[in-house]
Amino acid sequence: MVEQLSEAERADALDGLPEWDFDEARDAITRTIVFTDFAEAFGFMAQVAILAERMDHHPEWSNVYNRVDILLTTHDAGGLSERDVQLAGAIDGILGG
Amino acid sequence: MVEQLSEAERADALDGLPEWDFDEARDAITRTIVFTDFAEAFGFMAQVAILAERMDHHPEWSNVYNRVDILLTTHDAGGLSERDVQLAGAIDGILGG
Repeated sequence: MVEQLSEAERADALDGLPEWDFDEARDAITRTIVFTDFAEAFGFMAQVAILAERMDHHPEWSNVYNRVDILLTTHDAGGLSERDVQLAGAIDGILGG
Repeated sequence: MVEQLSEAERADALDGLPEWDFDEARDAITRTIVFTDFAEAFGFMAQVAILAERMDHHPEWSNVYNRVDILLTTHDAGGLSERDVQLAGAIDGILGG
């Protein structure tokens, strides 16, 4: 069972993820990425999809043309968990940031 | 330039797309599809992405695990156009419906 991060753990995690915002209402982290065009945006999504499947942890996300909005939270934990932090780090890795 | 559908044209189009709902606020059509799991949902999204790129018309969509929500509208036309009807038909084709 994955546990929800404590407030202190969350603060630590967010320090390490400067590109991500904390969504208090959802106890989630979010990141928006704007690409050059749809092909580039969807190419990124395909990379994340394969990674997410391998990590068995999946984003909530939406796409409009060149824009991708990602929200990470852990339904089983009732909020943000270590799994979200790991997936966020892996997504940052894809983006080279 | 693509033109927004008239009310009569829209009613005709919706008759031919029984799986789609009309979103009056956005002048758009929407469809939600629930798959077995994430891999199946994203596989479908990859098919739609390639089709959308070929048609040069792209959905607004979101995905949460096995669920995909699609909204089609034509920004250039200020609402629903023939291009949305064509893309909706092509998506239905992928889904075999």
